[in-house]
Amino acid sequence: MHILYKSDPRRGALWQQWLAQHAPDIHLHLWPDIGDPLAVEMLIAWQPPEKLMATFPNLQALLSVGAGADQFDLAALPPDLPVVRMIEPGLTQGMVEYVTFAVLGIHRDMVRYLQQQREASWQAHSVTPAAARRVGVMGLGELGQAALRQLVSLGFDCAGWSRTSRQLDGVRCFHGAAQLGDFLACCDILVCLLPLTAETRGLLNRDLFAQLPPGAALVQAGRGAQLNHADLLAALDSGRLGAAVIDVTDPEPLPPSHPFWRHPAVWLTPHIASQTQNESAVAALLENLRRYQRGEPMIGLIDRARGY
Amino acid sequence: MHILYKSDPRRGALWQQWLAQHAPDIHLHLWPDIGDPLAVEMLIAWQPPEKLMATFPNLQALLSVGAGADQFDLAALPPDLPVVRMIEPGLTQGMVEYVTFAVLGIHRDMVRYLQQQREASWQAHSVTPAAARRVGVMGLGELGQAALRQLVSLGFDCAGWSRTSRQLDGVRCFHGAAQLGDFLACCDILVCLLPLTAETRGLLNRDLFAQLPPGAALVQAGRGAQLNHADLLAALDSGRLGAAVIDVTDPEPLPPSHPFWRHPAVWLTPHIASQTQNESAVAALLENLRRYQRGEPMIGLIDRARGY
Repeated sequence: MHILYKSDPRRGALWQQWLAQHAPDIHLHLWPDIGDPLAVEMLIAWQPPEKLMATFPNLQALLSVGAGADQFDLAALPPDLPVVRMIEPGLTQGMVEYVTFAVLGIHRDMVRYLQQQREASWQAHSVTPAAARRVGVMGLGELGQAALRQLVSLGFDCAGWSRTSRQLDGVRCFHGAAQLGDFLACCDILVCLLPLTAETRGLLNRDLFAQLPPGAALVQAGRGAQLNHADLLAALDSGRLGAAVIDVTDPEPLPPSHPFWRHPAVWLTPHIASQTQNESAVAALLENLRRYQRGEPMIGLIDRARGY
Repeated sequence: MHILYKSDPRRGALWQQWLAQHAPDIHLHLWPDIGDPLAVEMLIAWQPPEKLMATFPNLQALLSVGAGADQFDLAALPPDLPVVRMIEPGLTQGMVEYVTFAVLGIHRDMVRYLQQQREASWQAHSVTPAAARRVGVMGLGELGQAALRQLVSLGFDCAGWSRTSRQLDGVRCFHGAAQLGDFLACCDILVCLLPLTAETRGLLNRDLFAQLPPGAALVQAGRGAQLNHADLLAALDSGRLGAAVIDVTDPEPLPPSHPFWRHPAVWLTPHIASQTQNESAVAALLENLRRYQRGEPMIGLIDRARGY
């Protein structure tokens, strides 16, 4: 079986070596060394090359190296080409770590304390018990569920919101546009892990912030284009929101003149919350290829209609 | 039963009100309004008044409002006076939150990322899986055990060290001076939660840092006098240590000219890791008073010989 890889070359070399050892029947070709294009059954990439189907007429699926597939122009792909996003424990673990760090940082006033450090100010603030801190996660897929399990174990008062109905242990679940307001009203800390779709583009805006409790905080680890930067800055500057931890922006990288870099209530990280881990990801890739060979549906298959 | 309280007056007023409602037989007097000194059976305080036993000859125990009793001059107290430190879920929860935040922050390079933010630098660094990150906790009492449970649930490779032998699920346990070197050699992140005793004063010094893996990091949430500031600065500046998150110092507050405030590899917080929570603490206090009334040993009784 011939697979073409087109992404970070160091990772490609590691995967090629790993597969040669664990699955010698699978041949991973590293872009631009494509081998026989007629033999290529799968492309695993961050961005596919141009003239995809013309070049690889026997392509059976397009696999994303990342947790999302929103970087693909789905409309430009053949409608029946399976598109698969990466679901692997390293990505999930990374997001759990990031969200836990960010929520604890906001919960324990760390944005303020590290700002005080710059000012050499030794001043303690009162603590809110975790049980009285309402944390809401938008997006209840693989990543959202794992993050909520950790937040529940820390004793937070947890809620979740997703497009369709879900049930999660220890989490008050809301769904759909009709319940969004009720959900937002009980989020002292709002965590966005939504995929980027037509519905979520620009969702984190003034209207949404106005439905949060006064002084609420935002953790944005979804996709950059979901957040209206000007609305966030206005909400922080007016005190409507208290703090924001932001990992994804539009554009990325953020220009050096952007106000997020210097805002005292913003922690900004360079899209590092969840990164595909080489070892666990190649094992997940192999498992998916075996499922394909057995005629089973691959894990992470995108619903082309809903867009994720 | 008459109890005298001598600490933060706002908390005292809350406790007085709470006890009047939940345990009307217990009379909490708020310093300096001591009532009949002969009737006082317990003193709960951060610092006892002078001439303690002369003023309160019928005192049966001295209770600390905090997690430690090292602020008491034990040598100046009658040797047979029971001294009890505060063990309550709010204190424990606070420490779990702080340690989890600090370890995740170091693990995910957040000290570096927030420094990059000041420089408007968008640059991602590679991630170490939690399973390959060795976290060691010194001090395996109430706080250390709870912190380790959370760290184990996050997937870290956990070790613990204490004065006497302990066994904890999922944690490689070391004990005593003889095993300290073996413990330190496997701590990429060292968390100090030790009580302050003659043995732990100045323990976090150059000799100890030299036994950690190169580039290791320190989380200091024990007691200020355990850390040699000059040795830590030298270790950070030479790269021997990579980062430090420090909650306790000697003296407190730290003077504005102290280099910790401005060091790029230091996060400094003003002794806020674990704070006694008014509601859960008064419930724990009442439970301890009931144990005393039933003739049972109180929870948190200090071993005067070992000093904690």
